[in-house]
Amino acid sequence: MNRAPLVARKMLQYPFARAYSSGVAAAVASAATSTVDGPHTRPVVKTAIPGPRSKALLEEMGKSLSTSQVAFFTDYEQSCGNYMVDADGNVLLDLLTQIGSLPLGYNHPAVMAAVSSSSALTPLVTRPSLAMFPPSSWPELVQSTLLPLAPRGLSEVTLMMCGTCANENAFKAAFINYMDVKREKPLTPDSEEYSSTMLNQPPGSPKLSILSFMGGFHGRALGTLSCTHSKPIHKLDIPAFDWPVALFPRLQYPLDQFVRENEMEEKRCLAEVEEKMEKAAKAGEPVAAIIIEPIQAEGGDNHASPNFFKGVQSIAKKHGASFIVDEVQTGGGATGITWAHESWGLTEPPDVVTFAKKMIVAGYYTTLDKRPKEGYRIFNTWMGDPIRLVMLKAVAAEIRSKDLLSQFRESGDVLLSGLRELEECYPFLVHRARGQGPFCAIDCHTTNQRDTVISTLRSKGFNLGGCGEVGIRFRPALVFEPSHASLFLNAFEDTLAELSR
Amino acid sequence: MNRAPLVARKMLQYPFARAYSSGVAAAVASAATSTVDGPHTRPVVKTAIPGPRSKALLEEMGKSLSTSQVAFFTDYEQSCGNYMVDADGNVLLDLLTQIGSLPLGYNHPAVMAAVSSSSALTPLVTRPSLAMFPPSSWPELVQSTLLPLAPRGLSEVTLMMCGTCANENAFKAAFINYMDVKREKPLTPDSEEYSSTMLNQPPGSPKLSILSFMGGFHGRALGTLSCTHSKPIHKLDIPAFDWPVALFPRLQYPLDQFVRENEMEEKRCLAEVEEKMEKAAKAGEPVAAIIIEPIQAEGGDNHASPNFFKGVQSIAKKHGASFIVDEVQTGGGATGITWAHESWGLTEPPDVVTFAKKMIVAGYYTTLDKRPKEGYRIFNTWMGDPIRLVMLKAVAAEIRSKDLLSQFRESGDVLLSGLRELEECYPFLVHRARGQGPFCAIDCHTTNQRDTVISTLRSKGFNLGGCGEVGIRFRPALVFEPSHASLFLNAFEDTLAELSR
Repeated sequence: MNRAPLVARKMLQYPFARAYSSGVAAAVASAATSTVDGPHTRPVVKTAIPGPRSKALLEEMGKSLSTSQVAFFTDYEQSCGNYMVDADGNVLLDLLTQIGSLPLGYNHPAVMAAVSSSSALTPLVTRPSLAMFPPSSWPELVQSTLLPLAPRGLSEVTLMMCGTCANENAFKAAFINYMDVKREKPLTPDSEEYSSTMLNQPPGSPKLSILSFMGGFHGRALGTLSCTHSKPIHKLDIPAFDWPVALFPRLQYPLDQFVRENEMEEKRCLAEVEEKMEKAAKAGEPVAAIIIEPIQAEGGDNHASPNFFKGVQSIAKKHGASFIVDEVQTGGGATGITWAHESWGLTEPPDVVTFAKKMIVAGYYTTLDKRPKEGYRIFNTWMGDPIRLVMLKAVAAEIRSKDLLSQFRESGDVLLSGLRELEECYPFLVHRARGQGPFCAIDCHTTNQRDTVISTLRSKGFNLGGCGEVGIRFRPALVFEPSHASLFLNAFEDTLAELSR
Repeated sequence: MNRAPLVARKMLQYPFARAYSSGVAAAVASAATSTVDGPHTRPVVKTAIPGPRSKALLEEMGKSLSTSQVAFFTDYEQSCGNYMVDADGNVLLDLLTQIGSLPLGYNHPAVMAAVSSSSALTPLVTRPSLAMFPPSSWPELVQSTLLPLAPRGLSEVTLMMCGTCANENAFKAAFINYMDVKREKPLTPDSEEYSSTMLNQPPGSPKLSILSFMGGFHGRALGTLSCTHSKPIHKLDIPAFDWPVALFPRLQYPLDQFVRENEMEEKRCLAEVEEKMEKAAKAGEPVAAIIIEPIQAEGGDNHASPNFFKGVQSIAKKHGASFIVDEVQTGGGATGITWAHESWGLTEPPDVVTFAKKMIVAGYYTTLDKRPKEGYRIFNTWMGDPIRLVMLKAVAAEIRSKDLLSQFRESGDVLLSGLRELEECYPFLVHRARGQGPFCAIDCHTTNQRDTVISTLRSKGFNLGGCGEVGIRFRPALVFEPSHASLFLNAFEDTLAELSR
């Protein structure tokens, strides 16, 4: 890997060591008093990671399942709060938390209690077809759980089984809505639309498109994969819809130091969105929806300003296209607020907001007028999973009663300011620190360098993931405290110092 | 509705009344001794269905969720075995069982016990990213549960969250495999394939297709929906891939009385498959896979002979296309054997077999050589759900220890022979009785007539669903006994008699 010159090591002495030997020391000490982590107070590394037991299990698993993505095997029974315990007994502070899908970390007592009650047994063993035979408790459960969490202005919810299907069905809702608006006379069963769609032909299967952004990730079924442009290996060899792709702004960080440059970059990108919309309409495949992430996550944690998102919404509206905000990664509190898009100050809500991961259930919010009038257009056998809603209800109550998001935002401040200090000390190793709450990232200069940093941190008992080609992403659970951030930053400092030698 | 002439009513006196007042009477009496149904021994109807409480709940649910598919609300806590209890206290014998997705009916004690153990708590509350951080117990759980159930010749398994994603990813596996075979030199990261796929263009996003059959149903995401051709409302307004669609044989029933006619029909359809394959290749969008259901379920319970399926497999092989058998509806014992395609006597297994519903978990089986060599090509955050595998393990043990499939096949014999007698008595109301095990269907002559039959049966406490335009489908749980079939047949006889008046 590329080594940072010695001067960087020298820079370390000043700002960083100071910060972490003063105010933050108290926070580090307080880690031992956090109850959410159960018996764990810090990483404990006993073997290489993956260790011998993980390696043996990998071979066993390889007999019937793909293992190419396996990092290590986990003893989930022993994992607690922010800490995961691997198959070899190593204890890792987890800043990835199952690709950001565990809202309260491992084995949280409130979630355990919710699913242990006898009333949770039936929803688990008797998973209904929720759209045909909903449980009597369903309206109340949805309204007391999903509606208080709904983005402002959106009160209609549709549940699916994963983030990919949330987005695929958001597309379908947008297509249906687009044609409903466009259709001049009511549908009749003998119309050409009915017969042609059975053979995948227009007018029943119209030529419509979804505009997405380079670097975006929206899922892996054939519609969403056509809107995913984060890494070629996700898409290679799979046929795609020839839908328009616009450039996402490539901003410079810290944002407050590059205001003018970033404004120009966003202006350029908005002009391209407008151009692609017009081009698609002229080519006879008009854009029915624009889909965008508040922070392009899988694609490398790329941020944009509220003005950019407002501009995209305005272009969508002008062309009669839905504005779909994909909050699968950013939603459920991941950026320190429930929905990342609520920081944009939109004057009207997005048409659709999709979710999964930290929300435990997957689906999308929209408005009542977007509900298809006919049955079975947006449908599947399960349409959600009641036990996951029981869990979400407990999670939401815990977030409220402990004011977890305030604490989580503080943790984000500690994490991001620490990353900024480190990039000043080690500019040849890391740069472009950025984040919203603890939804942070920092880049290395090469993929190899990034992979080395992540594996070195793992060997010290810190679990992290990459994003984009050179990014390290932080996706802690909402129980991640300032003291956890400090623990990590100390280990990160050591790692960067070692790699600079 | 169209009323059957009186002569039909007269025919009833002979064969049917005889059958059900003799041998089967004993079975009816024994219903009371079946323990799987808990306190329920027969349907009990107290109100209209949906009753007043269901109607009030419908209005409540309509504030935030689509209700256009809701039949009635269910009190799942009171439901047991083959019986569901609705929100108004009505007890219904359920022959639909959540679109065939409950293997052992409601609240089965073996499944309850499996998820009640303390070891089931962590897999539930801490859902991992199974392909990155699998639990230490994962290889053993998969191998002891999914492998003993695997179709002969297939030992590689990939898990997803629902049937749609099982099929979408089976398509992706087929596309990747097709290109792997075709590719002349190894991929390099700077190849045109990598850069072009990021913009949805060939060669990285190649022009390839999936051949499907008219009447088939394979899911609702944008790839699978392009292969779904059961009802136009599922597809209307959603853009589709312009992939080839072949006719599925339209057989005459009972099959043994129309051997020659059906052979000719299948020959004609096979010739069309061959023709469409050649046409697709010539048009530069060759077929990478053929997907087919053993019985077209949603499309109307259309059957075909083993020879037809062998013929399709042989055409697929000749053209280098994968042969994907979609057992989402037929798998997991639904036809009285674990996999419906195992009755065809294939000399080599299908390339891919997909599953969901009665299997509780969703995914697909294939062979090791179809596993993509590179990571993250077939992937999602969850890749299955451990708690569902814990449940499936208990279900499989119960099926084995009680030899449930033998009993289930007997129930199928009672059901199908009863339906055949009834279609002889009421040819103007019902015809084309058909089935494999209790996976049965019978047609009415019009959609209105079918809907009336189903709603009349529901008002008597029997829950059923439709399929195709005029079909009534039977999708009981594996705990459905001959006595349940008899109970239903008596009510069906009454219904048909009433509607003939």
